[in-house]
Amino acid sequence: MNEFKPVRFVDVALEGQFWRERLETVLTRTIPSQHVQLGKHGILESLTLPNPPPPLRFPRNEHNFTVQVFWDSDVGKWIEAASYALSHRRDAAIEAKIESIVDDLEKAQAPDGYLNCWYLQREPDKRWTNLRDNHELYNLGHLLEGGIAYFLATGRRRLLDILERYVDHVRQVFGPNPGQKRGYCGHQEVELALVKLYRLAGERKHLDLAAYFINERGRQPHYFDQEAIARGEEPKDFWAKSYEYNQSHRPVREQTRVVGHAVRAMYMFSAMADLAAEFDDDGLKRACEALWSDVISSKIYITSGLGPAASNEGFTEAYDLPNDTAYAETCASVALIFWAQRMLHLNLDGKYADVLEQALFNGALTGLSRDGEHYFYSNPLDSDGRHSRWAWHTCPCCTMNSSRLIASVGGYFISAGKDSVAFHLYGGISTTLALAGTTVALRETSTYPLYGSIKIEVSPANPARFTVKLRIPGWANGASAAINGDAIEIDAAKVNGYLSINRLWQPGDSIELELPMPPERLYAHPSVKENVGRVALKRGPLVYCIEEVDNPGGHVQELCLPRDADLLARKRDDLFGGTVILTARAERLETKDWIDDLYRRSPPARSDSKLVALPYYLWNNRGNGSMEVWISEA
Amino acid sequence: MNEFKPVRFVDVALEGQFWRERLETVLTRTIPSQHVQLGKHGILESLTLPNPPPPLRFPRNEHNFTVQVFWDSDVGKWIEAASYALSHRRDAAIEAKIESIVDDLEKAQAPDGYLNCWYLQREPDKRWTNLRDNHELYNLGHLLEGGIAYFLATGRRRLLDILERYVDHVRQVFGPNPGQKRGYCGHQEVELALVKLYRLAGERKHLDLAAYFINERGRQPHYFDQEAIARGEEPKDFWAKSYEYNQSHRPVREQTRVVGHAVRAMYMFSAMADLAAEFDDDGLKRACEALWSDVISSKIYITSGLGPAASNEGFTEAYDLPNDTAYAETCASVALIFWAQRMLHLNLDGKYADVLEQALFNGALTGLSRDGEHYFYSNPLDSDGRHSRWAWHTCPCCTMNSSRLIASVGGYFISAGKDSVAFHLYGGISTTLALAGTTVALRETSTYPLYGSIKIEVSPANPARFTVKLRIPGWANGASAAINGDAIEIDAAKVNGYLSINRLWQPGDSIELELPMPPERLYAHPSVKENVGRVALKRGPLVYCIEEVDNPGGHVQELCLPRDADLLARKRDDLFGGTVILTARAERLETKDWIDDLYRRSPPARSDSKLVALPYYLWNNRGNGSMEVWISEA
Repeated sequence: MNEFKPVRFVDVALEGQFWRERLETVLTRTIPSQHVQLGKHGILESLTLPNPPPPLRFPRNEHNFTVQVFWDSDVGKWIEAASYALSHRRDAAIEAKIESIVDDLEKAQAPDGYLNCWYLQREPDKRWTNLRDNHELYNLGHLLEGGIAYFLATGRRRLLDILERYVDHVRQVFGPNPGQKRGYCGHQEVELALVKLYRLAGERKHLDLAAYFINERGRQPHYFDQEAIARGEEPKDFWAKSYEYNQSHRPVREQTRVVGHAVRAMYMFSAMADLAAEFDDDGLKRACEALWSDVISSKIYITSGLGPAASNEGFTEAYDLPNDTAYAETCASVALIFWAQRMLHLNLDGKYADVLEQALFNGALTGLSRDGEHYFYSNPLDSDGRHSRWAWHTCPCCTMNSSRLIASVGGYFISAGKDSVAFHLYGGISTTLALAGTTVALRETSTYPLYGSIKIEVSPANPARFTVKLRIPGWANGASAAINGDAIEIDAAKVNGYLSINRLWQPGDSIELELPMPPERLYAHPSVKENVGRVALKRGPLVYCIEEVDNPGGHVQELCLPRDADLLARKRDDLFGGTVILTARAERLETKDWIDDLYRRSPPARSDSKLVALPYYLWNNRGNGSMEVWISEA
Repeated sequence: MNEFKPVRFVDVALEGQFWRERLETVLTRTIPSQHVQLGKHGILESLTLPNPPPPLRFPRNEHNFTVQVFWDSDVGKWIEAASYALSHRRDAAIEAKIESIVDDLEKAQAPDGYLNCWYLQREPDKRWTNLRDNHELYNLGHLLEGGIAYFLATGRRRLLDILERYVDHVRQVFGPNPGQKRGYCGHQEVELALVKLYRLAGERKHLDLAAYFINERGRQPHYFDQEAIARGEEPKDFWAKSYEYNQSHRPVREQTRVVGHAVRAMYMFSAMADLAAEFDDDGLKRACEALWSDVISSKIYITSGLGPAASNEGFTEAYDLPNDTAYAETCASVALIFWAQRMLHLNLDGKYADVLEQALFNGALTGLSRDGEHYFYSNPLDSDGRHSRWAWHTCPCCTMNSSRLIASVGGYFISAGKDSVAFHLYGGISTTLALAGTTVALRETSTYPLYGSIKIEVSPANPARFTVKLRIPGWANGASAAINGDAIEIDAAKVNGYLSINRLWQPGDSIELELPMPPERLYAHPSVKENVGRVALKRGPLVYCIEEVDNPGGHVQELCLPRDADLLARKRDDLFGGTVILTARAERLETKDWIDDLYRRSPPARSDSKLVALPYYLWNNRGNGSMEVWISEA
């Protein structure tokens, strides 16, 4: 069992401006507008099982597939996000919308508990015949997460009851016993949802079902082979060609390389880490660690984007990290946060929190526009200006992943253990914990991630001895700290990336932590061929990019940053409610003397110029234009 | 009418080693093996209209399309290539194979002359209902080119007669008169084939039909709209979204930007240039010139590859020339040669011959392996080692484009006009022409493209005054020439890139031409973002690349070429029967001190290294490995 557990987001008040703004945007703009979109695109209607069903909005593709099979999941994710919003403040209108959905689901549910609106409406005789492609359990997983969140937010358990009946049905259908299907879902997700249900309800059967799905995966004879044969298909005709696509190419404990569809992988690894903790399963833990090491050492963009390829929405080879064609689906970065948090609780090591933070600020946040109603599905690190945010997507998975994450972001800040509390993120939060036999009020005050001056007030109701652990980010060189004004020797007190302070805390104690944030240059491993001769800019946890709107005069790709140019950080209050930009002397490659030449013998002339860099997550909020993260270093 | 006309390949003897080797390979390996492949893949069988037809080998995709609709064209191109081979030397076995195909086509032809094996066998009631997608006239075009070549090679005209009957049928079906369809093909090709037929047979009706198709294209009301409606489809549901895909978005004379599918574009522009000459049509000529200028100034790879995008197998925006995802279909470079030759004959300007040569050595030749039996369809300029040649392709268009081009390559060397002859390419050829009232034997001797020392013997049967024009390539700085040992002032005698020598030629005269070929660095326009900070190597007409087999120790992308490093050319007789490699001092980015780091603060260390570059067209003939054309310039 994990020593630390996250403090739930409802118990963490977001007080800093950075997150308050994002949270308010999600609560007031994103979640309501997503409901409108779900209605507009026929997704809500699909729950009412209209008879006859309307024509498909997204006709089946050449692989006989339509995105409509996972519409239930979009509803589930919206309920989850909306319920997190309700946890912040109740809202009768939102609750009425959820109740209406629950009415539909209640009516739709089959007498035996089965509840998949696609199959019930369109292919009632075909349930559980194509787990490989058709997302039945994935849909359940997301509905279940929605039902749990809704119950926690409101105490209403009608949806949860519906879903528990469905889970009971699933438990009868799947398993190792005679008459059961030895199957599992082609898109992992239900596993981590079942662990959540177990943790809510305490019923072991839910945990066992999650473990069954994880442990069965990839075993021979392969379930997806048998299932394809039963459908009259050739297993080898699987469109993705390899079961690496859905990480069922071998049993999960034998997987060491991160392969296939990135979101599937991240959801599965999250469940594996959950189960490693619940079962104290070293084999699972070791597999998680090997997979973590593989992805972090060779398959992650500096922005935390995962999965370079559109063809499988996923991973390819080590160091294959093209910038302009990067798929780097928003969902994958969100799901990486889920996994990183679980790894962090398996082992309180700052290396996991570093990735969590990297994914939060540079991967997940990027997916949602400033106005809260536009999205990125893929997240390239270089654009000639043709990549832009959209109001909705054929496959709207990323939209609700953004909203459910931000609406619950407080849950990633701190964790509590026995007589100890660990701060992973900073940005202005407060909470009250029961620690060491007393009640401790904690308030962290900062303008993080803009500046690294952090104050933490630790106020036990009565003096008490416990440990406060403060993450010293891996990027923070020269961090310093003081307690009540007295300096602490950080290096001596740092364990696995956390400054660990065990003392008898008194009411009114405070810690000051200073994380220097000089602008930095980062270089990529030479095997990342696109980045040879290029440099990325970072300050604190934020990766920067250069965008055409700040660097007019042509494509930003024509700018070069001299190796010796100073990088200056400057607060810009006029931009996005206040952000820190970077500026530097630069050189711009001249195009005007090229006339009609496309290739020539002499290199481009260079003119003195300037470069303005913006946090990557903010790009494409001021119209379309070119952008790049990796800048040619002159 | 054109002042110059190409001397046909049958009248040009290839004597130099470079082209003899390629020609022999194509004659002895490529053409026979292609026939085997056509048999193995069901393409030959498809001509016999088996009843019932066998199941589709390539099931229809989501757009209801299968590549089998253009199998006739593959047969036509093979006949064309094989006939060129027969022109070099008759071969009863090859002729028997062609005769067997002609038997099938004769049997297949409908009483009214229609001859499309796909429709006759599978959808007899649907002929001419989907010109937009289904390649009916494209197939005719390629069969016709095959029939013409076969007739010229053997004097046998049964195939030509069959196809002329088909053309007569087409002429009844299509045209502006009542009861005719105002259509044209979604894949241009038949137009240039009809011009060839006209030039062979002298019958004006063939030229008029070609002109009709070109002039009708893109007019409103749009034929493909009407045709889609007649099929019960929405025109806007066209999978490619825009008629730019097939260059029917507007009338051809109004097109100034090169758009859409690259091969379609090149075939169409070739026909436009033909018609501009035949009709002395200034509007068409101006359109050709504008389109030429657009593609050459912003949309062509240094290798002559055309069309960066896989999605439309074609063009995108100006300067969008990614290296590793370059589509750059072999067929497009071959077709560019067709177009360039026609532009050259509209205006004898070396700028067209420069592109023809660039496409021949770096685009078209690349498509065929050294063994003559493996191919590239797409031609990236950068590979991490995953791109390799294949023995056959779902869409085998490129295979026979390579063979038909190389089997007739002699036809691109020289052109004859009134009292003048122009040399465009060098490499060791001889021919005899009627010029200025006498017979002139011409022999060009060189090891071009390996070295630029060229000797041209001009031996009129009797002394005669005429003009010899020698192309001075645009890349050749400091070229020198002499007649019978006496130096010529090249700059004074050069017109539009051709050294023009008008004199009374005597038997035994000879010209010596020296084209210096120092290794060169070339830079791309700064708007080609992938090439910022990068350099390409070229020597004479050959673009070079660095390949892992010659540069062991990791991916070649880890090599940097210092700006000041000398480039040395060296003959390597052990490689590919003799080629010239380039070597230079280089730096290799060190990977060994990165351990598990993917990103870090200090740039990669560099170690002294060496770089070996090989002509690009030779790459991937020694196993798989990384390769790049654009090298990071340290």
